Amino acid sequence: MEIGAVNSEMDTASTISIKGILSLLVQNADENNGRRLISLGMGDPSAYSCFHTTRIAQDAVVDCLESEKFNGYAPTVGLPQSRRAIAEYLSRDLPYKLTSDDVFITSGCTQAIDVALAMLARPGANILLPRPGFPIYELCSSFQNLEVRHFNLLPQQGWEVDLHAIETLADKNTVALVIINPGNPCGNVYSYQHLKKIAETAEKLGILVIADEVYGHLAFGSRPFVPMGVFGSTVPVLTLGSLSKRWIVPGWRLGWFVTSDPSGMFRKPKVIERIKKYFDTLGGPATFIQAAVPRILESTDEVFFKKTINILKQTSEICCRKIKEIPCITCTHRPEGSMAMMVRLNIDLLEDISDDIDFCFKLAKEESLVILPGTAVGLKNWLRITFAVDPSFLEEALGRLKSFCQRHTLML
Amino acid sequence: MEIGAVNSEMDTASTISIKGILSLLVQNADENNGRRLISLGMGDPSAYSCFHTTRIAQDAVVDCLESEKFNGYAPTVGLPQSRRAIAEYLSRDLPYKLTSDDVFITSGCTQAIDVALAMLARPGANILLPRPGFPIYELCSSFQNLEVRHFNLLPQQGWEVDLHAIETLADKNTVALVIINPGNPCGNVYSYQHLKKIAETAEKLGILVIADEVYGHLAFGSRPFVPMGVFGSTVPVLTLGSLSKRWIVPGWRLGWFVTSDPSGMFRKPKVIERIKKYFDTLGGPATFIQAAVPRILESTDEVFFKKTINILKQTSEICCRKIKEIPCITCTHRPEGSMAMMVRLNIDLLEDISDDIDFCFKLAKEESLVILPGTAVGLKNWLRITFAVDPSFLEEALGRLKSFCQRHTLML
Repeated sequence: MEIGAVNSEMDTASTISIKGILSLLVQNADENNGRRLISLGMGDPSAYSCFHTTRIAQDAVVDCLESEKFNGYAPTVGLPQSRRAIAEYLSRDLPYKLTSDDVFITSGCTQAIDVALAMLARPGANILLPRPGFPIYELCSSFQNLEVRHFNLLPQQGWEVDLHAIETLADKNTVALVIINPGNPCGNVYSYQHLKKIAETAEKLGILVIADEVYGHLAFGSRPFVPMGVFGSTVPVLTLGSLSKRWIVPGWRLGWFVTSDPSGMFRKPKVIERIKKYFDTLGGPATFIQAAVPRILESTDEVFFKKTINILKQTSEICCRKIKEIPCITCTHRPEGSMAMMVRLNIDLLEDISDDIDFCFKLAKEESLVILPGTAVGLKNWLRITFAVDPSFLEEALGRLKSFCQRHTLML
Repeated sequence: MEIGAVNSEMDTASTISIKGILSLLVQNADENNGRRLISLGMGDPSAYSCFHTTRIAQDAVVDCLESEKFNGYAPTVGLPQSRRAIAEYLSRDLPYKLTSDDVFITSGCTQAIDVALAMLARPGANILLPRPGFPIYELCSSFQNLEVRHFNLLPQQGWEVDLHAIETLADKNTVALVIINPGNPCGNVYSYQHLKKIAETAEKLGILVIADEVYGHLAFGSRPFVPMGVFGSTVPVLTLGSLSKRWIVPGWRLGWFVTSDPSGMFRKPKVIERIKKYFDTLGGPATFIQAAVPRILESTDEVFFKKTINILKQTSEICCRKIKEIPCITCTHRPEGSMAMMVRLNIDLLEDISDDIDFCFKLAKEESLVILPGTAVGLKNWLRITFAVDPSFLEEALGRLKSFCQRHTLML
């Protein structure tokens, strides 16, 4: 494995894939003997028994499959009863009611991202993306020929959006800005006030807001999760979400693209027509999984959600506590939501590590521990740590991280 | 419902959606009272008990779901064991062995079409599509900015490809030609010799062949199904397929995009890289359905396949026999495969019907019978009849078609 080759590939954000890098890191770790591989790389906790989904969701899917009523095609925009159930689910937290026409069912949030960008792409258009961010946006933008402009999230301000940068970057060809809340990779949960300012800024600039809420409701800090759609009357919002994270079933590929837009900008017949046609070209999720959505959304017990929140709170605290013991790594902001956090690597304190990528490859090799280099999400010399991991694994992983850092720390 | 409005929409192939037209026809029929609606419009027989899938497939999916091992993300190109199983399944009919690296798992054949076209699109490129055809190709091409050029399928020659037209249409910007075999909408099954000629023509012109084999193995006439990949050494073939039709589970959204290319044109690192990156932006099918694929492909009983073939043979024969009794409709070629056939409408024999669209809207209204106008697949004044329907429904439907035609026939 030539690290140089990976490094040069990472120069262009659009060529980065988190899964690609993680898989290279895993390959690098495989040469190691004796210790089990631990990955704090991916936001997929479904492998750990403490994060298993609820029996209610699983039974709903099995029943729909065994009914033999849902082996056929669904409408490409989704089953009507499932669109309605998602509209009702999201409307619980909004000052207005979404209708089933606002909801389009997608194959996970990934496909919802693709739909949003495809619907906004036109020659010369640009889109504002957060840095650090989630690289699928860059990748989709490059396939859709959308120019990407990055605004910073501010680590010292709880990873809030640099609103001044937004105003500087936007021009008449800017179609939208993207926010991810609760945040991946930063673990931020934005306040009502900050979201309001984002909406007002977007409205002033005449651009849409794409609100990636795939981690919706996974907030365990002092601030509650507020959906961006709350400000849909100020600025049209495209809300992206899925069952993946809250129900811990990322492999079910059940997501949604929702026009949170009480002012009706997306209800123009030509716009709806274009969205529907685009959905005709997509695969979409399995019909019997779609059919299970109403029961899943209506019947899931609060106890299940609380259990997940409690574990994430616990594991995020383990991270913060353990990282405090490692001088070359700084947690600038305690995570309040999602399943990941960004920590800063003080490379000057390490003697034989050139950057975050070098750090992560050596860490994988020496400790059978996979952590995502910040470069993969746009921040060099940071690390993204996923804490949606069984607590005992996490303790062991962070112990290994500490030993690794101790071994590589400059002796002064 | 204004028929004129629909008509004008249909002028551009790229704006046509079969599902859209069928849904308008169903709406038109709904005003009718008393008779149950019968649709010969869509290739989705899963609603009829005689076409239910095999218990083996359903159990495999339930077991994978209940194992709780497959709730997480799969690699975006698909689970390795499922890619391998599909490679083995397809290799049974090829003179060489596919490997799992040749197989990419998609959300139904629809997503496989999107992948094929996205991977070939570049500024100025064009693609050769059959007429009549399957409109998703036109729709995907328009979203990918691929210029479409149509070649005819020849009704008097069993809907064979007009090879002369291919040579006339192709130029240095032509990237591929598409064949659908067994054919939708025509019910053709191409001979080994004809496929060989297609491969040789494509090779001579330096273009790829996209072989849509979503109806693979559904051949009930004298000719066996021959996969285009047999000629992969002559010309690189992109094979598209799915579980949808042979296993009668279109709603499971489990398809494949396969490089049937023993010469290795698609094994260049940059090409593989681009394919993989594109898959990173797609939703893909549910992991637990993917996980069931090896067992489904290995364990499905031949008896199940034979039963389907026998019913399709029977229902296609009912169609041919009944249509012979209707003077204004001609079956020019007896279908030998797939689930659909094209029949010609002799509009001159009808007194108050202007064209195929007018015919289908009046038919829906008067008889609660939905049939797709040929215009929707590129052939004006033809009809596409789907015969993957319970035989008793089909008999009734064709009886209604006959009465309708009798009522509207010109009295000479």
